[in-house]
Amino acid sequence: MTETTESLDLSKLQDELDAINAQITKQGSTVRQLKKDGASADVIDEAVKALQALKINAAGLAEKLLGSEPEFDRKAFDDLLIRKMFVVPSFEIHGGVKGLFDLGPPACGLKAAMIDLWRKHFVLAENMLEMECTCLTPEVVLKTSGHVDRFTDLMVRDTQTGECFRADKLLEDAIDDLLEKNPTMPLETREEHLRVQRQADAYSPEELDKLLLQYDCKAPSGEPYSSSFPFNLMFRTSIGPEGTAVGYLRPETAQGLFVNFRRLLDMNAQKMPFAAAQIGLGFRNEIAPRSGLLRVREFCMGEIEHFVDPNDKSHPNFPSVADKELVLFGRDDQLGSGKTKTIKIGEAVKAGLVNNETLGYFMARTQLYMEKIGMDPARLRFRQHLATEMAHYAADCWDLEIKSSYGWVECVGHADRACYDLDVHAKATKTPMVATMKYDTPKEMDVAKLKFDRKAIGMVYKKDARMVSSALEALAEDWKDFEPIAKALEAEGKATVDGYEVTKDMVTWEKTTKKVHEVKFTPSVIEPSFGMGRILYSLLEHSFYQRDMDEQRNVMRFNARVAPQKCAVLPISSSAECNSVVDEIASSLMDIDMATRVDKSSAALGRRYARADEIGVPFAVTVDFDTLRDDSVTIRERDSMIQVRLPKKEVPNVIYDVVHGRLTWEDVTKKYPVVQVDEGEGANTQAASAPPGAKTVVEATSRGRFSRPAPAN
Amino acid sequence: MTETTESLDLSKLQDELDAINAQITKQGSTVRQLKKDGASADVIDEAVKALQALKINAAGLAEKLLGSEPEFDRKAFDDLLIRKMFVVPSFEIHGGVKGLFDLGPPACGLKAAMIDLWRKHFVLAENMLEMECTCLTPEVVLKTSGHVDRFTDLMVRDTQTGECFRADKLLEDAIDDLLEKNPTMPLETREEHLRVQRQADAYSPEELDKLLLQYDCKAPSGEPYSSSFPFNLMFRTSIGPEGTAVGYLRPETAQGLFVNFRRLLDMNAQKMPFAAAQIGLGFRNEIAPRSGLLRVREFCMGEIEHFVDPNDKSHPNFPSVADKELVLFGRDDQLGSGKTKTIKIGEAVKAGLVNNETLGYFMARTQLYMEKIGMDPARLRFRQHLATEMAHYAADCWDLEIKSSYGWVECVGHADRACYDLDVHAKATKTPMVATMKYDTPKEMDVAKLKFDRKAIGMVYKKDARMVSSALEALAEDWKDFEPIAKALEAEGKATVDGYEVTKDMVTWEKTTKKVHEVKFTPSVIEPSFGMGRILYSLLEHSFYQRDMDEQRNVMRFNARVAPQKCAVLPISSSAECNSVVDEIASSLMDIDMATRVDKSSAALGRRYARADEIGVPFAVTVDFDTLRDDSVTIRERDSMIQVRLPKKEVPNVIYDVVHGRLTWEDVTKKYPVVQVDEGEGANTQAASAPPGAKTVVEATSRGRFSRPAPAN
Repeated sequence: MTETTESLDLSKLQDELDAINAQITKQGSTVRQLKKDGASADVIDEAVKALQALKINAAGLAEKLLGSEPEFDRKAFDDLLIRKMFVVPSFEIHGGVKGLFDLGPPACGLKAAMIDLWRKHFVLAENMLEMECTCLTPEVVLKTSGHVDRFTDLMVRDTQTGECFRADKLLEDAIDDLLEKNPTMPLETREEHLRVQRQADAYSPEELDKLLLQYDCKAPSGEPYSSSFPFNLMFRTSIGPEGTAVGYLRPETAQGLFVNFRRLLDMNAQKMPFAAAQIGLGFRNEIAPRSGLLRVREFCMGEIEHFVDPNDKSHPNFPSVADKELVLFGRDDQLGSGKTKTIKIGEAVKAGLVNNETLGYFMARTQLYMEKIGMDPARLRFRQHLATEMAHYAADCWDLEIKSSYGWVECVGHADRACYDLDVHAKATKTPMVATMKYDTPKEMDVAKLKFDRKAIGMVYKKDARMVSSALEALAEDWKDFEPIAKALEAEGKATVDGYEVTKDMVTWEKTTKKVHEVKFTPSVIEPSFGMGRILYSLLEHSFYQRDMDEQRNVMRFNARVAPQKCAVLPISSSAECNSVVDEIASSLMDIDMATRVDKSSAALGRRYARADEIGVPFAVTVDFDTLRDDSVTIRERDSMIQVRLPKKEVPNVIYDVVHGRLTWEDVTKKYPVVQVDEGEGANTQAASAPPGAKTVVEATSRGRFSRPAPAN
Repeated sequence: MTETTESLDLSKLQDELDAINAQITKQGSTVRQLKKDGASADVIDEAVKALQALKINAAGLAEKLLGSEPEFDRKAFDDLLIRKMFVVPSFEIHGGVKGLFDLGPPACGLKAAMIDLWRKHFVLAENMLEMECTCLTPEVVLKTSGHVDRFTDLMVRDTQTGECFRADKLLEDAIDDLLEKNPTMPLETREEHLRVQRQADAYSPEELDKLLLQYDCKAPSGEPYSSSFPFNLMFRTSIGPEGTAVGYLRPETAQGLFVNFRRLLDMNAQKMPFAAAQIGLGFRNEIAPRSGLLRVREFCMGEIEHFVDPNDKSHPNFPSVADKELVLFGRDDQLGSGKTKTIKIGEAVKAGLVNNETLGYFMARTQLYMEKIGMDPARLRFRQHLATEMAHYAADCWDLEIKSSYGWVECVGHADRACYDLDVHAKATKTPMVATMKYDTPKEMDVAKLKFDRKAIGMVYKKDARMVSSALEALAEDWKDFEPIAKALEAEGKATVDGYEVTKDMVTWEKTTKKVHEVKFTPSVIEPSFGMGRILYSLLEHSFYQRDMDEQRNVMRFNARVAPQKCAVLPISSSAECNSVVDEIASSLMDIDMATRVDKSSAALGRRYARADEIGVPFAVTVDFDTLRDDSVTIRERDSMIQVRLPKKEVPNVIYDVVHGRLTWEDVTKKYPVVQVDEGEGANTQAASAPPGAKTVVEATSRGRFSRPAPAN
């Protein structure tokens, strides 16, 4: 187990900051607990003051750290994204819509490669059952899942203009303003305001309304705001011509898999455990989408639902990843040291830090996927949810966070959701959602043998009678489960089972033993959920670097496997002979599905290489005057800018093999002579203009001429 | 040029039917024209009677033909689709929603392969600019495209229950009822009713209301219907928290590409022609979705927008497809012979049957794509739109129709939409949507040299002043265009330009000549539009067949390239040794991305082959007792049921090469010894139980044991 390492100075600074952040988390927790316990105002204020001091301290350190981090040129990066059409605002010429973005050609290719790899890495490798469910979802499904009632934020309206605002943000902004305008405010009063501000998202609508009045929050029109009300983040529509059937655009893809559980289990020949997967769109009507591609209203998700016996969450393939090291930021470390740990997932599960093998297995597989697509491993960590963050039914949750210029952003959730999802749909639809496990040898069990008075049940429950008897029978399979019912019926003459009141006249029983050959159970769900759009954006940032040539040049260091275009083909002159060789090479590459970019423009070669670098094309083949003499061409590798010379007919195989990982670029540089070139502005000379006999001008080992090395392909 | 051939009897019958259908089309056209021309009732009735007689004749023939067509066992097919989870109704356990279906694992894999091939065949092969635009679309965009106003059907409402109906269908049904209940009705009256029925979808709302009253159409509640009103088929929602910004789910993907035209042109370095492409979801709130997967409310489309100079619609790659034969059902043949023609696309374009090279090029590429994914070429045809079917701006349209048990269904549209789409967005956003073509040698042209009175224009048009002068300047570039304006200004003192009234005081001019180096134009759009869901469904039907064994067995004959799973691996016994070899082979296949199905169940081998056949797995590798002795296994090909024996370590390469088209199954049967097996019910013997020395028990040529041969891979 080793701590994460960075360059020494930075790492010291970061250590300090981590420690303070951990104290902040802990102190925040203390403050909340004091409030919950109804501690006196004095005690709370004292705690809040301490918290505030910590925060100021942290802010200073963060600023220092930021100043010393390798510079990220946002302007150059954003400009590149738009100029090269990675991403454009949707419906731009019509004025655009906040939170909607289109992917242009290079991002489209990148995304297709990412998804292809996702399918191979997860779905195909483990025979997951992939589905494609609809985005349109009838209300009953999302009512059942809880989204209709709870997928909300509190809103207020400008009563005059109708404009809407997130109520908690208004309160926060109002307090910021107040404090700024009154720099001489007594410290105690200041702290009281800050206390209110920190709770902004926890108030009830009534409390918020009062506070907005109290802080004199006025709408832009000058009128007071409306009362605050919950705003559901789902896009609503109606399905069918009547206009009465409410539907929503799904906010996640998971529900489609849950409602198909029974068919999926059949499809898997009733065998457990198994996983279902789905790649598709999700929609959320964000109130104020801001952080570019990280918070959008329409996004691509990849979700896996792994169904497993709640009493046995081992995973058959766990040994294959047990030695994989992950950077974990556990609950205790968040509240304690503030430091991440680099630890083998096998050890983490053994130590109980990660709840179970299946959860740990998927975390490791996610890490491997990120490395495959070329994410910088130094900017990945798994953060565990604090107990207060998790849903009551969840057993454990770890978010893969990716560091970008926006900070650490959750990109993949890994949640053990227990049997919550299957349970709610089973209850709402009265459809059993259970799996069966056969015992190797039958078990002797205490059970209840029931005798029903069908008539008595029928009188009360009519068509639900079968539900009542089934519920009782389920409990009767284990005396431990049935005993409380038996006691209640004996003592009070009635008992409640699954919401039904059962009376003594409906059922009699006898405690007995039984050989049990199988057990039925509602599977637990372990859910890795990928925000593909966020991953795509993070990959763009991790891939971006600039190198100092005669001018700053932007490069995208996509690895060959995911690069949207694999190879550029350039003629040194616009002669018909050159062009015809270019076309020949390009089409031989296309024939084997290697996306190829032909650039016959009259710009200097150096300029054309730079253009290919900007969209991350890993290789460039140049047809020069020697080609016309001896059929040889050069291949240039993007990051090292090293070129080799080889027969043109060998190009397709070399590119194909490097893209498919059968050959590394290093292998290529050993196999073929390396040639020296100058890529300065306007350079239009090829090494090949040296006499054809002169080989290996530069050693293959002379790499690393660029400021930040690319991760290995 | 040859007529399509089928088995002789069928083809004769089909010829007769085709001829009659052509007469029906022609006669229908005549009737419409007579009505339009206001012909007398007598004349119209005479024509309608003739039409009716033709229809009865056709119905009889169709029935005969249907009886003699190879039987399609819909029950077995539908049962297979559901049982093997190709397709399931969405949200089934919650009661489902009409017109929404989920794709299960085998269909998902098939679709992924279809889309991967589509991307390679179209996007990659021609460097199309692929985009991914959002489904959520603001109202202004679809208002501009015409969808908000015109994407409607006429509806009526049951005023008591609120239930909605398609008004024209109600009228049609009412007339059917009336005629059925009054079999003795005088022929003339009958014809009058039929005349009304045939026009049902052409009446105005007011006319329909009158007719519904006249035919005594009552809602299910017994009340009269509401007045009829247009129902827009787009799903409406609102974007953002205010609830005031109306948005729709896009009914097609094309608009996203049109609004991005300028950026796309930049991305293509201003070069014309070029194509953009998009694969994504479309949504249509169908009123009464019925034909299963062929009419659904949420569907996947693949659209290509090829932007081209309206004066030069040649295509550089046309020669590569010119000799490809297509089955064309031209406008004249639909009205005349009623027969399709099999003709080389090069000839069809030369003869003017297909409007231009680019349109023809895409038709041929579509045909090639269909053949690649395994569609039965005998059930494909291109039907040209009649003049009355096309939008006024369209130059030519050809639908690829695929024959299934639902008849000929449009699956891919190929439309030359001229410059309509770019024009409407340019006008609505005041954004020029033009491309520039440079002349090789400058052209001497008559132009108008303008002098504006900016003040005079500004007084009238204020901020639109620049639009007015730009519009005039555009016309001035060619005297032919400006001349009518000049004449109007001289004669009447005013003229209308792009909707603006221009008066004489605003501009003066001089006719002169100019050397012109380039020309600006609004590109024409040629749009192939693929309904991926319909194609998927058609492929399922074309792939389905049954073979008579000891019982009827269902087979899906997916070709290896698109088959969702490439190979099954089966142990002959459940011994640990067998299982371990199975796992070893399966994982060596997975390592090279060959989706593999392991079936270790205790069912007889024959039964397990049958299971793999049902989901179209092309190959099955069997590990038997000989494997444990000599490391050899068998590979069985699904359709021929021929098996070969080979060393287990050669399996991955053989499967990979066949899937990637580097090897045919015939090659495999020549390379390795073919073995004889019995696949009857309960058969669990392998040829290998014969002495290991005995080779080539069956000749590789003994194919075709199944009733309907599979198309070549």
